[in-house]
Amino acid sequence: MSIKPSILDQKVVADTAIFRVESQKLKFSNGVERTYERLVPKGKHAGAVMIVAINDDNEVMLIREYSAGTESYELSLPKGLVEHGETIFDAANRELKEEIGFGAENIEFLTEMTVSPGYMSYRLQVVIATGLYPERLEGDEPEPIEVVPTDMNLAIEYANGNEITEARAVAALYMTRELFRNRGDSDQEESFF
Amino acid sequence: MSIKPSILDQKVVADTAIFRVESQKLKFSNGVERTYERLVPKGKHAGAVMIVAINDDNEVMLIREYSAGTESYELSLPKGLVEHGETIFDAANRELKEEIGFGAENIEFLTEMTVSPGYMSYRLQVVIATGLYPERLEGDEPEPIEVVPTDMNLAIEYANGNEITEARAVAALYMTRELFRNRGDSDQEESFF
Repeated sequence: MSIKPSILDQKVVADTAIFRVESQKLKFSNGVERTYERLVPKGKHAGAVMIVAINDDNEVMLIREYSAGTESYELSLPKGLVEHGETIFDAANRELKEEIGFGAENIEFLTEMTVSPGYMSYRLQVVIATGLYPERLEGDEPEPIEVVPTDMNLAIEYANGNEITEARAVAALYMTRELFRNRGDSDQEESFF
Repeated sequence: MSIKPSILDQKVVADTAIFRVESQKLKFSNGVERTYERLVPKGKHAGAVMIVAINDDNEVMLIREYSAGTESYELSLPKGLVEHGETIFDAANRELKEEIGFGAENIEFLTEMTVSPGYMSYRLQVVIATGLYPERLEGDEPEPIEVVPTDMNLAIEYANGNEITEARAVAALYMTRELFRNRGDSDQEESFF
C-alpha cells in the first residue's frame, strides 16, 4: 500500500451556516507538495444515515422532496443526521417516523459509503428497515414529503433512468436487491427477482 | 407534481479556491420560508465525467489514489472535469489517457447522477469505455495512480464490502453490470454473470 502524505499545514478557510472548508498542505512520499481544500463536519452530529425501508408488500419507501442544491423535486431514499447520543438505528427509526410516518421493528446495517472522498470527509451509513408500523413524529420539513412505495424492480428502473439520480440511493437500491437475491429470502423473492 | 418554491433572495456567502457557497432564501408554495445553503460551480468547466473502462479481458479498470477528503487511499473509478470546448466523450478519453494510460475506441453514455442534490447543484455524467489501446497523456497527479484491472463480479464484491466506498462508483458498477446482463453481450457474458 502507498504511504500517506504528511500534513504540512491545515487551516479553516471558510465557515458558513452549514459548510466548513479546510485547506490542507500535503507532502506526498515522493516529495511533491500540494494544497487541497476539503469540506469537514460542522456541529455535534455523529454522521448521517440513509434508510432502505421495505413495507409488507415488498415495496421500497421512496420519498420526493425539494432539493435546494439542484433546485428540483427529487425522488430518493429517506435520510438524515445522527444526533448526539443516538445510534444509527435510533436515528434511522426517528427519520422514518418523521419522513414517511412509519417506525421499523427491524433495522440492519447494509454498508458505509463516501460521497466525494476527494473533497469531503463525510461518510454515510446505510441501513435496511423492515417490519414497518404506522407512527408519525413531527419533522422539520418546510412542506409535506411525498411518500412513494415502489416495487424494487421498478425502483431499479427509476435508478437506471432519470427518475432517481442520487448516487447514494442508486447504490443502496442495487445493494439491497443483491442482498435479498443472495439471501434467497422466500418472502421477498417474488417481488425482488 | 409539486410547485417549486420561489427564490426570495440569493447571495454568495463564501468563495474559496475551489468551493463557492450560495445562500438561498426560499418561499414554498404553502407560504413557509426557509434559508438553505448550497455549493454551486466555480470556474469555467462544463461538468464532470466518471468512466467505467472495460479492457479486452472484460476487467473494469479501477484506480487507487489518495483522497484528501477522507484522508485515505481509495479504490474507485477514473473521473475528472470536462474542460471548456470538450464533449463528455473527449473528456473521458483524455482522463483515461492521463489516469490509466489507455485511450478508448468506444465511449457510450450510461447515466447522469447527482451526488448530494439537497446541498450541491453538481451533476456527473457516467460513460462506459471499451476498445482500450495504450496511450498516455501527462496528468496533474502528485504521484502515480495505481491501476487495478478487476473482474466485474469482484468489483461488485469490493463495492459490497469496504474496498470501494464511493457511492457514484458503486452505482456505476452495478448499472454497468445490469446493462451488460440485459444486453446479453456474448463476449462479456462469461465474465459478467
